[in-house]
Amino acid sequence: MKSEDLRNILLTVSYDGSDFCGWQKQTKNGNETYRTVQGELEKALFKIHKRNIETIGSGRTDSGVHAVGQAVNFFTDIKSMQAENFIPALNSILPKDIRIVNAAEVSPDLHARFNSLSRTYRYFIKCGKTVFAHERHYCLHIRRYPDLEVLNEMASCLSGEMDFTAFSAAGDQSVSKHRFIKNSIFFIENGFLIFEICANAFLWKMVRAITGTILRLEEKGFSKNEFKKILSDKNRIEAGPTAPPHGLFFWKAEYPERLLQKNRISFSSL
Amino acid sequence: MKSEDLRNILLTVSYDGSDFCGWQKQTKNGNETYRTVQGELEKALFKIHKRNIETIGSGRTDSGVHAVGQAVNFFTDIKSMQAENFIPALNSILPKDIRIVNAAEVSPDLHARFNSLSRTYRYFIKCGKTVFAHERHYCLHIRRYPDLEVLNEMASCLSGEMDFTAFSAAGDQSVSKHRFIKNSIFFIENGFLIFEICANAFLWKMVRAITGTILRLEEKGFSKNEFKKILSDKNRIEAGPTAPPHGLFFWKAEYPERLLQKNRISFSSL
Repeated sequence: MKSEDLRNILLTVSYDGSDFCGWQKQTKNGNETYRTVQGELEKALFKIHKRNIETIGSGRTDSGVHAVGQAVNFFTDIKSMQAENFIPALNSILPKDIRIVNAAEVSPDLHARFNSLSRTYRYFIKCGKTVFAHERHYCLHIRRYPDLEVLNEMASCLSGEMDFTAFSAAGDQSVSKHRFIKNSIFFIENGFLIFEICANAFLWKMVRAITGTILRLEEKGFSKNEFKKILSDKNRIEAGPTAPPHGLFFWKAEYPERLLQKNRISFSSL
Repeated sequence: MKSEDLRNILLTVSYDGSDFCGWQKQTKNGNETYRTVQGELEKALFKIHKRNIETIGSGRTDSGVHAVGQAVNFFTDIKSMQAENFIPALNSILPKDIRIVNAAEVSPDLHARFNSLSRTYRYFIKCGKTVFAHERHYCLHIRRYPDLEVLNEMASCLSGEMDFTAFSAAGDQSVSKHRFIKNSIFFIENGFLIFEICANAFLWKMVRAITGTILRLEEKGFSKNEFKKILSDKNRIEAGPTAPPHGLFFWKAEYPERLLQKNRISFSSL
């Protein structure tokens, strides 16, 4: 099949990470070893296409991490279906803990992972004596009320291109530990303390390591100077604990406008 | 044990109704037949007291209905513990889908069911193409966007003392179908369409029947006149479907100020 016969579909995917071993498909000898978001999505696409369809996700979220706006693209040879009809088609097949929020045809050049201009994550924290039962799987519960100003003094240290060796997990296979931070802020919304961070990309477990470290430093009465020292020392041991996955949501991914247009001439196929 | 030796503790209880057969304990020959909120709460209180402790809930929520502020009272002979310490004590024993939000000592005369001045319920509705995966157990999803003004024209018909025979379920054992509505309104908050209704008390499945009926009438283009007719005809068959339980939350219960004071002279023990 020639590539010009294929349409590139970009999905916005929401999932409840509680019962998934993360985004990325895990197979051994062709058999699925763990339940993953990508695995379930590709099974649903197989049912529609009657053949294997590969999906590409913007962020490879970890076990237990949720998403409201994961970006995923795949190529389809189905011509008879409007792109947005993939929403009900997939939702009727998928397990209920994955929901397709949007579907659009985009440039054949768009690659959900390599072309993301930015990824945004939000970490949800509930402060106080207790958490409501229905929120327990979707936020970290801490008893104290941290000082928002102190949290933001530390969060604002994260800006521009920086070396995140201090917040990389053992086993991270990235060649470079440099990432470009576009935005990093704590705020309060709907009764939650939320840490939002936007970057070109993230190291493995980086958002959770940063969240856990800032919360720990604030609790111990440290200031942004200690946080800066941890960053510049590039030593994971000095940093705080990795915050648990169930507070973290993949919020959204952004792409260049030209790649979001389906009728754009495909340079790669010229 | 004399009643003056007992302290009356009022709990504010949150639960995720998904895995419960409602609030009310269900036993057969002394054995629990279904998993209920009251059953789990009394098991936890038994562990603390080493004897059976009876609990009284303000609202006997149905299977699948949630709560953020269910009011529950029980009598304890434990003198050594501050009332608020029942929060961590119970939360450390209870399953995670029940969370104690507050605990306070109140007048020995307070009965969570008979003395409620009002109960407030909220029904959560998500409108649009899809629902986020992590919200799927906690709201009703409808594809269309109902007209808020039309919904509120109907909701505002519910005011003061009225006969709710039209919204009573088969099997409801209430002698009187009259209830006093204090407040009934639809509004939009945090991306949800919410129906809030406050009354002295409710018939079995009444909130869900009202919600389902108003949504159905609005969808069919009917106005408040049809809604009023259903009410006055007192015929359940004319009303709409009962909305599913997973969108409904027991929000809060209110009590007379004098009963919330623990040191109030107990008239019943004079």
